[in-house]
Amino acid sequence: MEEFRQKVEREGKNLGNGILKVDSFINHQVDPSLMDACGLEFARRFANVGATKILTAEISGIAPALMAGRHMNLPVVYARKSKPITMPDQVYLTVAPSHTKGRLVELIVSPEYLAGGERVLIIDDFLASGATIIGLVRLAQTAGAKVVGVGALIEKSFEGGRAMLKYLNVPIESLVCITSMDNGKIVFGDCK
Amino acid sequence: MEEFRQKVEREGKNLGNGILKVDSFINHQVDPSLMDACGLEFARRFANVGATKILTAEISGIAPALMAGRHMNLPVVYARKSKPITMPDQVYLTVAPSHTKGRLVELIVSPEYLAGGERVLIIDDFLASGATIIGLVRLAQTAGAKVVGVGALIEKSFEGGRAMLKYLNVPIESLVCITSMDNGKIVFGDCK
Repeated sequence: MEEFRQKVEREGKNLGNGILKVDSFINHQVDPSLMDACGLEFARRFANVGATKILTAEISGIAPALMAGRHMNLPVVYARKSKPITMPDQVYLTVAPSHTKGRLVELIVSPEYLAGGERVLIIDDFLASGATIIGLVRLAQTAGAKVVGVGALIEKSFEGGRAMLKYLNVPIESLVCITSMDNGKIVFGDCK
Repeated sequence: MEEFRQKVEREGKNLGNGILKVDSFINHQVDPSLMDACGLEFARRFANVGATKILTAEISGIAPALMAGRHMNLPVVYARKSKPITMPDQVYLTVAPSHTKGRLVELIVSPEYLAGGERVLIIDDFLASGATIIGLVRLAQTAGAKVVGVGALIEKSFEGGRAMLKYLNVPIESLVCITSMDNGKIVFGDCK
């Protein structure tokens, strides 16, 4: 994913406090061709995990999850952060701290679309502290589903998320790895 | 889009009060292949409007807009409903009533990604009262951009949105047209 790394390097902005602004191609404006290439790469890396469903969190996870789902021919479920009126009363709900919002957010999935026995691939835009992804893991496990992999567009390894997810014992794949954002810089590296 | 109409007929649920639940393939779980087919159809219908950007609203507009963007090779901007910390202080902001939330929601776009001179194609999941789409039109016009078309996955013609948008004098295309949801039924028709 050298193409994607170059895009992050060229257009990503370090706003301080570990906040990486990638609003020009992921978080506000989206580059569909690039997201599609990322989806294809996820499909390649997770070809052998036997996933039956992709799980992500609204809002920014939708684009990469959708494109991964397209290439893997899998349905995508995005956890809602507020309960729409179309959702049944009984739901799976957890809370996770949001780094960019500075507060706890709810993650809600309807039991209609996440069932026991499913093999769930989690895809999100960022792997940072791992808090959102661990929230998605809890939802999957509550539903009786098995998490079989975790993929992120961008990993900020200095926030320690990968270590937090190690207990899952599943493949963790990030397409771009950032090892430091100290002093206004963005340092790329290897997150393995 | 007979394939798409059949999916709506098979899986759409009339919850009353004009609420159509399509959570199994659009609004919570997403069918990537079907969304891709819808994106291709939007690309076909809007091939000649000269669009330079696609504008949608988070959350449910993202999937169809992204797939349309893929086939039209255009960037997609999704209006945010709350201002993330990565956004500059000066933004374009409007409010629109949300039918499913029963309150006003904000629609926010950064001037970084919506500029004067752009030719904007608006894509959303539903065309109902037209309120959200008119909000997006206001954002585009405030930015000095020109709206060149409006596309929706599903139109509920009985809510009158098409008439509200007529003043724009641009092509309005919906892939599925529902003319009535009275008495628990879902009646399909022609929205032209």
